[in-house]
Amino acid sequence: MSRQSNRAGDPRKVNGELFTLTYGALVAQLMKDYENDEQVNKQLDRMGYNMGVRIIEDFLARANTGRCHDFREAADVIAKVAFKMYLGLTPVVSNWSAAGDEFSLLLESNPLTEFVELPPGHANLNYSAILCGVLRGALEMVQMDVDVKFVQDTLKGDNVTEIRLKFIKRLEDAVPVGED
Amino acid sequence: MSRQSNRAGDPRKVNGELFTLTYGALVAQLMKDYENDEQVNKQLDRMGYNMGVRIIEDFLARANTGRCHDFREAADVIAKVAFKMYLGLTPVVSNWSAAGDEFSLLLESNPLTEFVELPPGHANLNYSAILCGVLRGALEMVQMDVDVKFVQDTLKGDNVTEIRLKFIKRLEDAVPVGED
Repeated sequence: MSRQSNRAGDPRKVNGELFTLTYGALVAQLMKDYENDEQVNKQLDRMGYNMGVRIIEDFLARANTGRCHDFREAADVIAKVAFKMYLGLTPVVSNWSAAGDEFSLLLESNPLTEFVELPPGHANLNYSAILCGVLRGALEMVQMDVDVKFVQDTLKGDNVTEIRLKFIKRLEDAVPVGED
Repeated sequence: MSRQSNRAGDPRKVNGELFTLTYGALVAQLMKDYENDEQVNKQLDRMGYNMGVRIIEDFLARANTGRCHDFREAADVIAKVAFKMYLGLTPVVSNWSAAGDEFSLLLESNPLTEFVELPPGHANLNYSAILCGVLRGALEMVQMDVDVKFVQDTLKGDNVTEIRLKFIKRLEDAVPVGED
């Protein structure tokens, strides 16, 4: 199907509230569909993964960053270029492990959770788990196998939202696209 | 719960592809959950309605437009202010009925359907039905009972996407918020 306005180089922006409410509808639907928070987290992460493996191509085309040589460089690109480009914010890169294989992204605010309050009884819900999946999927496409998870969340009363990324290994070959 | 960055007057923008993929995940989930396209359409419309009744407040605060005196004025505000603000595009207002109670919004492109192809066997799916719901919900909050539906859709091979709005009646009193 041909569409008239593809506009490479001119990414469309949409209003953050519209995005927040749409994401909220998605999470609410999954909470209806699945038995428990852990299953919802898993679905959100899986959806994010599938988005990440698609988004990376667009990102590389637009961001005009070279290949990252190490995990520290990747951390900077994720925080300063990718988050800025997709969510309009720049998390702080922090809490590096001594070995340099783990760091945290600290988000003062999180557009996914604006206006959101967790209903009672959902202490295990990782509401924004889709972000972890997106990072995991996108990084896998540039040959980095990375574990991504929330360790703090303002939605759960923490002062900051903290996403922890742990480098597992460099992937040598082309990786399969998509995951079900 | 307090969050640090609410930023009235400075609406956050997010990347259109991220929004498109998130919306796609929502539609795909509903297609798994419901028996047929009509039920999915209904759910999307309902979700949009709930978003519309929330979005209108933000819209009125930011748009700084006065009260619309008639349906023609509303049509202009929807196309030139609301669509621009939320989706970054300006549909053409067209095909007015002789009585002035119906018009169409013509969209050359639709950010919700970029990269989307309908799978076979879903000819009745109104993929972007959430937009109809948002318009219906938002208009209801400004005392306009309006019927909103797709009459053409580029996703189904039409040359343009056409959303038809038909004014039913002016609502006199406060209306209930939310719909399940």
